[in-house]
Amino acid sequence: MAPFSLAKRALIGKPLGSDQLEHERLNKRTALAVLSSDAISSVAYATDQILFVLGGAVGTLALSYVFPISATIVALLVLVGLSYQQTIHAYPGGGGSYTVAKENLGQGPGLVAAAALLTDYVLTVAVSVSSGVAAITSAYPRLVPHTVSIGVFAILLLMVVNLRGVRESGAAFSLPTYAFILMMVALLGVGLYKLSMGMGPLPAAAPLDVDPSSARHVASPVGYAMLFLLLRGFAEGCSAMTGTEAISNGIQAFKAPSQRNAAITLAWMVAILAVFFIGVSYLAQHLGVMPTTAETVLSQLGHRVFGTGAAYFALQYSTFAILVLAANTAFADFPRLAGILAHDKYMPSQFAARGDRLAFSNGIIGLALVAMLLVWLFNGDTNALVPLYAVGVFVCFTLSQAGMVVHWVKSKEPGWRWRAVLNGVGALATGIVSIIQIVTKFKEGGWIIAVLIPLLIFALHRINTHYRRYKIQVAFRGRSPLLPFNHVVVVPVSKVDKSAAAALVYATSVGKDVRVVHVEIDPTDTPKLEREWDRWDIGYELEILHSPYRSVVRPLVDYVTALQAETPGTLVTVVTPEIVLVRWWEHLLHNKTALYIRTALLFKPHVVVVAVPYIVGHDYEQEEKGPRWVADRAMLTGEMVAVRNADRPQ
Amino acid sequence: MAPFSLAKRALIGKPLGSDQLEHERLNKRTALAVLSSDAISSVAYATDQILFVLGGAVGTLALSYVFPISATIVALLVLVGLSYQQTIHAYPGGGGSYTVAKENLGQGPGLVAAAALLTDYVLTVAVSVSSGVAAITSAYPRLVPHTVSIGVFAILLLMVVNLRGVRESGAAFSLPTYAFILMMVALLGVGLYKLSMGMGPLPAAAPLDVDPSSARHVASPVGYAMLFLLLRGFAEGCSAMTGTEAISNGIQAFKAPSQRNAAITLAWMVAILAVFFIGVSYLAQHLGVMPTTAETVLSQLGHRVFGTGAAYFALQYSTFAILVLAANTAFADFPRLAGILAHDKYMPSQFAARGDRLAFSNGIIGLALVAMLLVWLFNGDTNALVPLYAVGVFVCFTLSQAGMVVHWVKSKEPGWRWRAVLNGVGALATGIVSIIQIVTKFKEGGWIIAVLIPLLIFALHRINTHYRRYKIQVAFRGRSPLLPFNHVVVVPVSKVDKSAAAALVYATSVGKDVRVVHVEIDPTDTPKLEREWDRWDIGYELEILHSPYRSVVRPLVDYVTALQAETPGTLVTVVTPEIVLVRWWEHLLHNKTALYIRTALLFKPHVVVVAVPYIVGHDYEQEEKGPRWVADRAMLTGEMVAVRNADRPQ
Repeated sequence: MAPFSLAKRALIGKPLGSDQLEHERLNKRTALAVLSSDAISSVAYATDQILFVLGGAVGTLALSYVFPISATIVALLVLVGLSYQQTIHAYPGGGGSYTVAKENLGQGPGLVAAAALLTDYVLTVAVSVSSGVAAITSAYPRLVPHTVSIGVFAILLLMVVNLRGVRESGAAFSLPTYAFILMMVALLGVGLYKLSMGMGPLPAAAPLDVDPSSARHVASPVGYAMLFLLLRGFAEGCSAMTGTEAISNGIQAFKAPSQRNAAITLAWMVAILAVFFIGVSYLAQHLGVMPTTAETVLSQLGHRVFGTGAAYFALQYSTFAILVLAANTAFADFPRLAGILAHDKYMPSQFAARGDRLAFSNGIIGLALVAMLLVWLFNGDTNALVPLYAVGVFVCFTLSQAGMVVHWVKSKEPGWRWRAVLNGVGALATGIVSIIQIVTKFKEGGWIIAVLIPLLIFALHRINTHYRRYKIQVAFRGRSPLLPFNHVVVVPVSKVDKSAAAALVYATSVGKDVRVVHVEIDPTDTPKLEREWDRWDIGYELEILHSPYRSVVRPLVDYVTALQAETPGTLVTVVTPEIVLVRWWEHLLHNKTALYIRTALLFKPHVVVVAVPYIVGHDYEQEEKGPRWVADRAMLTGEMVAVRNADRPQ
Repeated sequence: MAPFSLAKRALIGKPLGSDQLEHERLNKRTALAVLSSDAISSVAYATDQILFVLGGAVGTLALSYVFPISATIVALLVLVGLSYQQTIHAYPGGGGSYTVAKENLGQGPGLVAAAALLTDYVLTVAVSVSSGVAAITSAYPRLVPHTVSIGVFAILLLMVVNLRGVRESGAAFSLPTYAFILMMVALLGVGLYKLSMGMGPLPAAAPLDVDPSSARHVASPVGYAMLFLLLRGFAEGCSAMTGTEAISNGIQAFKAPSQRNAAITLAWMVAILAVFFIGVSYLAQHLGVMPTTAETVLSQLGHRVFGTGAAYFALQYSTFAILVLAANTAFADFPRLAGILAHDKYMPSQFAARGDRLAFSNGIIGLALVAMLLVWLFNGDTNALVPLYAVGVFVCFTLSQAGMVVHWVKSKEPGWRWRAVLNGVGALATGIVSIIQIVTKFKEGGWIIAVLIPLLIFALHRINTHYRRYKIQVAFRGRSPLLPFNHVVVVPVSKVDKSAAAALVYATSVGKDVRVVHVEIDPTDTPKLEREWDRWDIGYELEILHSPYRSVVRPLVDYVTALQAETPGTLVTVVTPEIVLVRWWEHLLHNKTALYIRTALLFKPHVVVVAVPYIVGHDYEQEEKGPRWVADRAMLTGEMVAVRNADRPQ
């Protein structure tokens, strides 16, 4: 344990007292940086997704569709943003989808939202980290083969940082977000300027502003197939909207007046995201940039606009930084939701416990493990992960807004009609998008989510059932004093050695009626044991239990059964020595008799098995001269008995 | 446990009493069948190996070398056979290589022999089963893709049969051996007759009786390279000699006069093996038969000599049967040797224990697992496995015969000089062959054995060191009566429920000085617990232990430490309830606090942790109406206390 503890201290830090649990309140500027990194960082991959999906079918013709699709998504974003303004108004304590759905729609929809959120937080980590790694490998192509390792390492780092317990310290967290905002403003500003000065696609690139009819070489899908394709491009592009709900979840982190500040910050976030997303799509179209597996759209735009100088690298590094920060928000949200669910008895209670550093350690470790598994399974490929991503987000949007409709209808507060209509339109729109998400992305990975979420809901439900029933079963209603049992102690002995002596000393300390037995496996060994026993002469008789089938356990169980039949209501304690060895492999060299006895008697009423630890140290060489270190540490050794007997009046 | 026990009973059978351990004595004819299957079955693959190795380098030219190489091996076989006649004379109790080497050459060479034998038994199973499967797939080529599955299944079957405990019943075991002998006599007889009538190689086959100089198309190695190749062919062919020592190991299985009978049987075995091996090689040469990956030499000879009728299939089935029987001998020998080594404290003591059916179960299971692993790793390919095989056999031959030389020199019994010389020549010859084995097959797999045997020796030695030191360390020399400790019982309580009640009833049964403590993780929960405790009113005070860092274990350890500091020499028993759940996954939903407490206190002197099992049944629905089944089975429940209190005088 010691080396493990040391490593843990070095990585995680000293334990923190519970009294240090407090909240730092954020002003609007810092809150924007902390809470909107997930949403704003989506521009690093959303345009790519549209072009990637369409490009696979219609080639560079995709460029002519990217802007209209992006514009549609921005319209949806604004609608959802307005919808969440209502939530901020109605839930000053923070309205997460789980809470809103549970309170207004009931436990069932609440669980659906919870399952969707849990999968989405995992995907936020996997997608953001993969996309962040892509920003780096776009700048340094020779790092491409290490994509998975870099991604896994980044997640491990986030895990350790979060186990230490992240103070949401404004300054450190504002830096990546504002650096990214700065670089994006520069990219779009300079890009649009250069565009107006006549910059266009590279000669090698495909024609742009293409008239669809002129693209003779591309077999473009027609009719429903084309519609399906456009819908899928739209569905993938909706990954831009992930993270929109973060501000309405985190109202309590704002300085007073927190609701008003949150509403203003949300408006800012939506505006920034909308401008960046539409801007990137516009530049990509007019500069003829298509994503490749080796280079992201943003990196290509950076190269075109900034060249290969410092500005380009600043863009890439700030992209990486904000994406890691986005992943970090999931490390705060997932464990918090898991903690709430554990408190509501839908997840194992271990998730409700705060660790040494006040963080929900089990939730953080669980999230990191699943996210690393995803990055490894999907080879850190953002394009492969995104089809799984936005499904859950839109399910949550829909449930949350439907819940708000019910909330307004019930509360009937001033303006409830138009508020209900606004949320209803939002719920309808996002509900339709949810269906588009599942249907169009089903083959590309949507089915994984369509299977996973119901399974998760089932698991949450089963766990709750267990806890509910367990509570009923162990409920205690008695009120009167306890009455001890008649108590017999049984000590099975196979050899006369120090471990047996330890068990006997313990047995005589805890009970008056002590029975020493020997289970006879090989009758030829018995006479020797009996001679040694008589020579020891401690005043207890050694009973021999025959074992015709060479089982240690069965004769002992029979003996205990007989004892209890003789005097009903007898409590039997079986005391066995347990050898504790210092080296792990040495355990393989000893029979696990103590464990077998415990297992065999586990379900037998009124029987308790006690394993008395007898420590065998590693300082063997010294042992052979005479025990020193071990004698000090061992529990109850023959030596100790001898010492104590010396004190005894003869 | 119940379903597992049932399945075990069905597969393995009822347990057998120790008094049923007896030996059946065999007459010569049966002993030949039982003990020589390993040796005689080698003809199914030995000729193949020579041709396979030489054919790879010189093509069908190999046919001109197979007879002289086989003849050399037969000469060596006769020498080794004569050598083992001496062992039979000197060790009427059975002289295994480990015993002979240990007694005459010392512990070190004994361990070398033991390690070599252990690897060889494993390879006997892997090679014999693979070769047996090849006999079947040669007859039914469409089974080739299932080679590994058939091999693994055969080993599993052998494992189960041996766990049931094989009586060495003569009749059943004689059948495969004598069927194979019969079919081989027929093959060689009819084959030689047809050969004399002018049958020759198939037109498609290569020229035979080739004059090496005429083989213009084959780039034949020259000089040392050719010598090396021939030596390697010789080394692979020596796999024919595996199993030769079986009879001298098993003298005690013979009817009286056992030594004489064993000597005669050994002579028969050597003669039969020699004739079959030389015969197969002769036929292969003159019928121009080269082994292919799809068909063994024996199968091809069968086709040429018998055609495709019943006689051919009888040959293949009897080959399969004798090879399985050969593998079966390792299932008797490996566990027996492991048992001897465990008894000598060189292997874990678990290998010395006889199972329900009097077989050494752990040895049988261990052998089967390793053999299956080998078959899987080498794709059931006999040609790939054989290079690993004979190395260990010849190391054992050498050590065993060198041991015999020492034996004769020490004993000085009549004729000791010529006997020593004979064994000395045998040791020298097999020693040289051992070196040839290692050197020529090193690259093809010999290195695995050259690494594995030293590792095994190291492991055997380490295990022995552990047991030796352990024995010294637990040796007990005290003789005086025990003196019990001053005893305090500590019961940590987190809730007032039935499991806590059970722990308290137990605590008051085993000790007078009981302290009830509550480790306070969340101070807001404490008042409620204190109210419930006061309402329960059992006459014990509840002490609150503060835990600023939310650890359950640390405050408890500090409390116990303080107790012991207060009254030195105090024995502390910590009693915790342990929830026992019926479904495995339910365990994941509960903190393992009892386990953490036990682990934290394991190395602390004079502290014993007792987990009082509290069984939570699966009949929840009934539970909600009122406990029935569980109340009957539960150890110490609140209900029981209530019942007992009703009996109490008020």
